[in-house]
Amino acid sequence: MKHSLIAFAALAALSNLAAAQSSVTIYGKVDLGLVVDSGNAAGKSVRISSGVSGGSRLGFKGVEDLGGGYKASFQIETGFCADSAAPVVTTVPVKNSSGATIGTTTTSVPNFCTGSNSFMGRQAHGDLSGAFGSISAGRQYSLGFNNLSTIDPFGEGYSADINNMVDGAGLRLNNSFHYTTPAFGGFTASGEVALGEQTGNWKGARVTAGSINYASGPAYAGLVVYNLDNTNGSGTARRDTQFGGTYDFGIVKVHALAEKATGTPTGAAKLDTLDLMGGLTIPLASGSVLADYIHHDDKGVLNHDASQLGLGYVYPLSKRTSIYSSYARIQNRHGATFTVGNATEAGTGDKAFSLGVVHNF
Amino acid sequence: MKHSLIAFAALAALSNLAAAQSSVTIYGKVDLGLVVDSGNAAGKSVRISSGVSGGSRLGFKGVEDLGGGYKASFQIETGFCADSAAPVVTTVPVKNSSGATIGTTTTSVPNFCTGSNSFMGRQAHGDLSGAFGSISAGRQYSLGFNNLSTIDPFGEGYSADINNMVDGAGLRLNNSFHYTTPAFGGFTASGEVALGEQTGNWKGARVTAGSINYASGPAYAGLVVYNLDNTNGSGTARRDTQFGGTYDFGIVKVHALAEKATGTPTGAAKLDTLDLMGGLTIPLASGSVLADYIHHDDKGVLNHDASQLGLGYVYPLSKRTSIYSSYARIQNRHGATFTVGNATEAGTGDKAFSLGVVHNF
Amino acid sequence: MKHSLIAFAALAALSNLAAAQSSVTIYGKVDLGLVVDSGNAAGKSVRISSGVSGGSRLGFKGVEDLGGGYKASFQIETGFCADSAAPVVTTVPVKNSSGATIGTTTTSVPNFCTGSNSFMGRQAHGDLSGAFGSISAGRQYSLGFNNLSTIDPFGEGYSADINNMVDGAGLRLNNSFHYTTPAFGGFTASGEVALGEQTGNWKGARVTAGSINYASGPAYAGLVVYNLDNTNGSGTARRDTQFGGTYDFGIVKVHALAEKATGTPTGAAKLDTLDLMGGLTIPLASGSVLADYIHHDDKGVLNHDASQLGLGYVYPLSKRTSIYSSYARIQNRHGATFTVGNATEAGTGDKAFSLGVVHNF
Repeated sequence: MKHSLIAFAALAALSNLAAAQSSVTIYGKVDLGLVVDSGNAAGKSVRISSGVSGGSRLGFKGVEDLGGGYKASFQIETGFCADSAAPVVTTVPVKNSSGATIGTTTTSVPNFCTGSNSFMGRQAHGDLSGAFGSISAGRQYSLGFNNLSTIDPFGEGYSADINNMVDGAGLRLNNSFHYTTPAFGGFTASGEVALGEQTGNWKGARVTAGSINYASGPAYAGLVVYNLDNTNGSGTARRDTQFGGTYDFGIVKVHALAEKATGTPTGAAKLDTLDLMGGLTIPLASGSVLADYIHHDDKGVLNHDASQLGLGYVYPLSKRTSIYSSYARIQNRHGATFTVGNATEAGTGDKAFSLGVVHNF
Repeated sequence: MKHSLIAFAALAALSNLAAAQSSVTIYGKVDLGLVVDSGNAAGKSVRISSGVSGGSRLGFKGVEDLGGGYKASFQIETGFCADSAAPVVTTVPVKNSSGATIGTTTTSVPNFCTGSNSFMGRQAHGDLSGAFGSISAGRQYSLGFNNLSTIDPFGEGYSADINNMVDGAGLRLNNSFHYTTPAFGGFTASGEVALGEQTGNWKGARVTAGSINYASGPAYAGLVVYNLDNTNGSGTARRDTQFGGTYDFGIVKVHALAEKATGTPTGAAKLDTLDLMGGLTIPLASGSVLADYIHHDDKGVLNHDASQLGLGYVYPLSKRTSIYSSYARIQNRHGATFTVGNATEAGTGDKAFSLGVVHNF
Repeated sequence: MKHSLIAFAALAALSNLAAAQSSVTIYGKVDLGLVVDSGNAAGKSVRISSGVSGGSRLGFKGVEDLGGGYKASFQIETGFCADSAAPVVTTVPVKNSSGATIGTTTTSVPNFCTGSNSFMGRQAHGDLSGAFGSISAGRQYSLGFNNLSTIDPFGEGYSADINNMVDGAGLRLNNSFHYTTPAFGGFTASGEVALGEQTGNWKGARVTAGSINYASGPAYAGLVVYNLDNTNGSGTARRDTQFGGTYDFGIVKVHALAEKATGTPTGAAKLDTLDLMGGLTIPLASGSVLADYIHHDDKGVLNHDASQLGLGYVYPLSKRTSIYSSYARIQNRHGATFTVGNATEAGTGDKAFSLGVVHNF
């Protein structure tokens, strides 16, 4: 009995410790892949990428029970470069006092490898949830991005990243509010607004979006409408209407998406494109094969049509660690210049192969 | 008994784990508020701020018992932007080989939202403490800032942040040493020096400061003298003398402060100002009302007088999470241009309203 | 028995918590030292340094057991400035459209105090290990740096840092792969390659290196060959051959190293130098005395010979916290301009003294 009492006392001490720290969970991902780009006139590019399947990241999150079914929570997540400490080098113009460009210079800033190159730039938000649903404020994934990553067989990563060609409908939104209803029979509805924060111009560069999502058993479907106002506050710079879904038949999971984008961005050509994607996830005895085809139809004056074929194979070493390989090839038409990138990089050519390991912690 | 032995063995294993990790405590704050600035000629500014009551932050700290009553400890704390990944954009001059300005360019660097825009820029220090008191070295809050934040009803945060108008007497000091005596009958004395680190000039840009503080039951009082030497090492750029205190009567807590600033900064007008602040904290059945009034008397040639009225309400959802609202209005006289900001931002107008949630972890 | 059952249940709950978090270990170092540089024409420099014995750092690491003797692991480690939030200010050229330099400007970026001034820039790698040995990819210490830090009595830190004068053979390598064999009778062999990542030029700026190391009881020896290709891919910019070891006689540990560097860097003088180092570690009743002498023989046309004498004393307050003092003096000959720095700084003069505290967590 003495042992158990000692154990209990020690446990009580430990419990306090654990309680004091239980409010924060540390998590992250280290993804390192060898990437070979080809199809660029300057030649092949062979490199290590920090985030082929998804950007390498370090995050902190926590949930507090407020009682009565209410919860407060937060999540902050930074990207980092797992491959290199090389800075981001940018060429910026130099102007004289009349505003005329007289030359250029370069700036070198620390590199965070994703997230608009900002510390905690992947996600940073505070949330309140309860019977009413959940509201979040801060920097967060857009409704369009969340829908795309659920429908894309590659989850918006690997060489075949759907964002190589299809607009992410906001990707991550700064200064945004987000509301999601509770689920009713598999359905949820969401709305979001991201402030443009321009002094004296409430409407400029503002994002508004809404979605209806359905998830039940093997089926998922999502409809998202996204609207970005022009910086000067007059007219729509971009409107995306995204509809798609997945169905898991067990021996194969089928993915399909259509996204229409229109808009009249200030000082640029009118936008009118349609993307169609069809894909498959095929579970094997060990690992999964991923495949999709994307058709990009530019109905605007530039007529920059293109298509992408993507293939991938993911082999899990454990629940947290996988080996992957992926390949994608873009066919650009009428002067289109899409490149094959991955979750972190834009890529340099119209073909890319990757082989890597991703470890989640 | 078998169970308790298993428990004990498992506990021992856990204890080691906990011990290995117990040296670091992770903590932080996510503060997200809607802010509406007015009183700027360009119009209203509506935005989300990352840190109205206090800057959003992530910190790591630990204490090690050295035996004999001695302890070693550390604290490192970084700001981050909970609202946005937008960079800090700065316009910098371009000079030709003769040193004449020929134009300007802009630099965009990652934004840490407070702390001189540096990683771990809020605080970073190592400490030793024992019967002799405590010494700290690194980047740390100044004595004047600590005194102000104890006396200000708003704790140097919210729209009514006392720093909108009153100098923080160093705020945070780089390259500083700090010594505090043990408490004697409620009294402590502290001294600090922050090195200017100029090669061949020991005195240039150096800070020296001292304080006497009293804290006992419902009463607090603090006297701080702060001195900043000019960059070239000759003369005083700024000297702040700060005296104030608080008394908690239970149904109301009273706050009062006087701060006199003088100095002869190189290449600028002689400094001679007096700030007076009176404030109240009124606990309600749920939450607290905060209020203060600041009178800023500029006795120098510019005569930039001003006054600020501040109001706030804080409603705790739990020990760690609160909803707040605050309002402040500045009356600038004789061309003064003070703006209403908050713990993180300088603000754009002479009036501001805020409504937000702060979550501590 | 009831107590033990409660303890057990609580323990089980705790175990889950611990398991959920056990994958990440947080560690780091806060090193703050007073440094006095002399021997610079502009005068003395008195300052606080964030990392005299080793750079202040914060790291996250974890190991996952994959079964069958295989393990996946990761380590990410950032430097931070424990002393100051001052930015890194750099002067950069401005060029006109013809490429001629017309002036200069300055950029100020957040300071990470070591690691190529990058977030997680000290180390960031993912690893797989098993009976085959271990492979790592990412940003990691070079074989030459690891060997040097084992042989240098000062562990590549303090005022007498061997890197004041001796090349680190790559220090940290971006975009690198690293393989180490299992140990056979005290011997291990390693190879590494770091990609230059130049589009269309696989060989440019590439590093290849190999080492054989021996460690057994009181003896350590290491041979490293390091090769850096020129940026344009033709010829060797630098080749270091490093050989040395240590032997611990108990009352004294003896350190010896020879490093030969050759190479033909593009647009610079041919390289041909030989460094010889001899050193001692002398354990006292409390603490240790460190000493070494380095002779740098420049056999190239510049003939920039130099020598360094280094002394240090480290007094442990606990297993994790030490007080240290160190001194080094360089004698530059024939116009050589080596300066006495430390683990974090390059220093400003040919003599430096340091006194500080280092706390590991």
